[in-house]
Amino acid sequence: MRTVDLITKKRDGGELSKSEIDALVQGYTQGSIPDYQMSAMAMAIFFRGMTPDERANLTMAMVHSGEVIDLSGISGVKVDKHSTGGVGDTTTLVLAPLVAAVGVPVAKMSGRGLGHTGGTIDKLESVPGFHVEIDNEQFISLVNRNGLAIIGQSDKLTPADKKLYGLRDVTGTVNSIPLIASSIMSKKIASGADAIVLDVKTGDGAFMKEMDEAKELAACMVDIGNRVGRRTIAVLSDMSQPLGNAIGNALEVREAIDTLRGVGPKDLTELCLTLGSHMTVLAGIAATQAEAAELLKEAIASGKAIEKFKTFLTAQGGDASVVDEPSRLPTASFQIEVKAERSGYVASIAAESMGLAAMMLGAGRATKESAIDLAVGIVLHKKVGDPVTAGESLATIHANSEEVAEVRSKIVASIVIQDAPVTPQPLLSGEIV
Amino acid sequence: MRTVDLITKKRDGGELSKSEIDALVQGYTQGSIPDYQMSAMAMAIFFRGMTPDERANLTMAMVHSGEVIDLSGISGVKVDKHSTGGVGDTTTLVLAPLVAAVGVPVAKMSGRGLGHTGGTIDKLESVPGFHVEIDNEQFISLVNRNGLAIIGQSDKLTPADKKLYGLRDVTGTVNSIPLIASSIMSKKIASGADAIVLDVKTGDGAFMKEMDEAKELAACMVDIGNRVGRRTIAVLSDMSQPLGNAIGNALEVREAIDTLRGVGPKDLTELCLTLGSHMTVLAGIAATQAEAAELLKEAIASGKAIEKFKTFLTAQGGDASVVDEPSRLPTASFQIEVKAERSGYVASIAAESMGLAAMMLGAGRATKESAIDLAVGIVLHKKVGDPVTAGESLATIHANSEEVAEVRSKIVASIVIQDAPVTPQPLLSGEIV
Repeated sequence: MRTVDLITKKRDGGELSKSEIDALVQGYTQGSIPDYQMSAMAMAIFFRGMTPDERANLTMAMVHSGEVIDLSGISGVKVDKHSTGGVGDTTTLVLAPLVAAVGVPVAKMSGRGLGHTGGTIDKLESVPGFHVEIDNEQFISLVNRNGLAIIGQSDKLTPADKKLYGLRDVTGTVNSIPLIASSIMSKKIASGADAIVLDVKTGDGAFMKEMDEAKELAACMVDIGNRVGRRTIAVLSDMSQPLGNAIGNALEVREAIDTLRGVGPKDLTELCLTLGSHMTVLAGIAATQAEAAELLKEAIASGKAIEKFKTFLTAQGGDASVVDEPSRLPTASFQIEVKAERSGYVASIAAESMGLAAMMLGAGRATKESAIDLAVGIVLHKKVGDPVTAGESLATIHANSEEVAEVRSKIVASIVIQDAPVTPQPLLSGEIV
Repeated sequence: MRTVDLITKKRDGGELSKSEIDALVQGYTQGSIPDYQMSAMAMAIFFRGMTPDERANLTMAMVHSGEVIDLSGISGVKVDKHSTGGVGDTTTLVLAPLVAAVGVPVAKMSGRGLGHTGGTIDKLESVPGFHVEIDNEQFISLVNRNGLAIIGQSDKLTPADKKLYGLRDVTGTVNSIPLIASSIMSKKIASGADAIVLDVKTGDGAFMKEMDEAKELAACMVDIGNRVGRRTIAVLSDMSQPLGNAIGNALEVREAIDTLRGVGPKDLTELCLTLGSHMTVLAGIAATQAEAAELLKEAIASGKAIEKFKTFLTAQGGDASVVDEPSRLPTASFQIEVKAERSGYVASIAAESMGLAAMMLGAGRATKESAIDLAVGIVLHKKVGDPVTAGESLATIHANSEEVAEVRSKIVASIVIQDAPVTPQPLLSGEIV
């Protein structure tokens, strides 16, 4: 069948078969189908959507377009976690050692960030000596020995997705839920996951600003996963304000250490326990969410979780003494307080502009080539709903320059204080299984 | 503004401004906007349509992407005619000398055909010696001297349209009415027309199979023309059966000669008088349609029309003696009758498959490189509604090979005969002004 006939079929609302989707993805990856046909197809998909079968077939065609990581050398159910991204999202740093401490094997591929702060790997690299340059064999043996290892995402995974994503970015076809869902799911499946827990965020600081869109994306990903034999669960979580208190690479490592010791921010702890419980149940280590949550709380209380984090850091060359002496982590030269101009209650903290403020300090990358400053960032002292007195510190700016007037005014503008008490958005607003 | 933002604007139902459309068309023509962005835009236009202003702006941007023919050296209102194409459409061959005979200046650029039969230029080249290789200066002086000249379409007209059409053809974006309309109108306007008469055909043998689509296309083209200062009128005509009796290049020249003498097929004559009346009124030579029709009928009856045809042929190197001795035109070696297998009334003649039958004989081009046989084709002896007796000839195949079994069976299958009398579709079903 000619590619133009496949485009016309989709344009007119028809359903593409598995073999048609395979031919499309293969042809596009190999270059026999040109960008100009694929972009027309993507726009037709934007308008027509995709059926559940189409989405599942597209996902698996992208998985098979490149390398598929074989984790069969690791015993147990390999459960991966994916977040749709937000501001101050320290979840992976906490969750990986936490669930590993109760016996969930964590063989995680992570990325470097392009955005407000670095990605998980950037954050971990603020631990002196820590590195992810280990081969697949070592990776698997580390997981078997310690229950946990994190490496960088292989360049060879899902080349079809990479090529298609680049094209969508310049052709106005990013915002298509089936295309977003199959992109995310193809990467997780190619990374070797047996089961997947998704953290789908909604609100100002999230990719999905609206709850109904976030629900649709979550349902779409869960359906794809379950259709292709990967048990998948999605948690809908709030990103109308930053998660936790820290925004910045080393600052988030400190916050992760606090959380693994049981003294972290309430919202970050709650989200990690929820996502972690799902992972623990999917791995077959607990029968119910409640039982799993007890195991995880006990791992924190007993110190098993923080010990697992130390073992993990050491195994990948990191200096685990940072856990007991966080001052050994990169530290910014200046700590500047942002004080409340009035008393009242925190009504909102605009997550996206707080993220931009952190990026202005140097915590994130604007382009792939940008260097990031691991020490800088912002630590919030108040969250939505908190009472505040004029002159009290709302946040601390951690900067390597004293010239922070612009960042300060961005933070001030992002935090709204009102007279009446405020009930914050609930952190969790549902699960899709 | 970035191209991706223009695509997103159109995708979300926004209206592109004149300067945005100009930038898009210029960038695409010059190559700074790649095919993959233009195809996504075309697909977004397929789904979202275009506003009247957008269509007019797109048309003029395509006009100005290349050469614009300057016909100001010809006095009078230059009225062009365009047909959306069909099977056995001999209209231009009749219409050009007919309206020229009453004083409408005809400076026509025509194409070679890709389809069932050749285009107007191919047909005219069946007259020995006739050629269209004349430069613009000669072209204008011929029109000033004889009132009529026909040349091939310059390669330099509307390069944006050529490039976009090629892209639409392989990206499932041909069937977009605003894109079809602006493509047609841009070519007519770049060819120098002051006013335009459109023959929009509907039915089995037409590009537009459905009347409502044809009406929409006609209205869209008329609106574009009038918005950009070219008085434009569209006639909706039937193409559910072939027009006239002849399908084939030299065969259609013979039919044109008959029609210019007043002894041509009724439907072809009626259509030429209708289109010609509009042209005559738009040129300011008659005040009303009725008056114009009288002038044209008189030109046929008096012999002025056929004399104009002879003058035209001679001026472009053609042997005008073919008009009095049509046997000097290319003639096929075999004339094979297709006889009725039963008596009754002709219920339908499938225009598209009659065209394909002519193409199988060699009358048309399947690809740009194909040679065409000017002599071959089909002449119908019955039209829809005609009574027929078993054994009577329905059509004559003009072939240069005796092996016409496949063509014959295609013709037989295309002509349906039934017992009950039949009222044919009316030739004309409306006008849009």
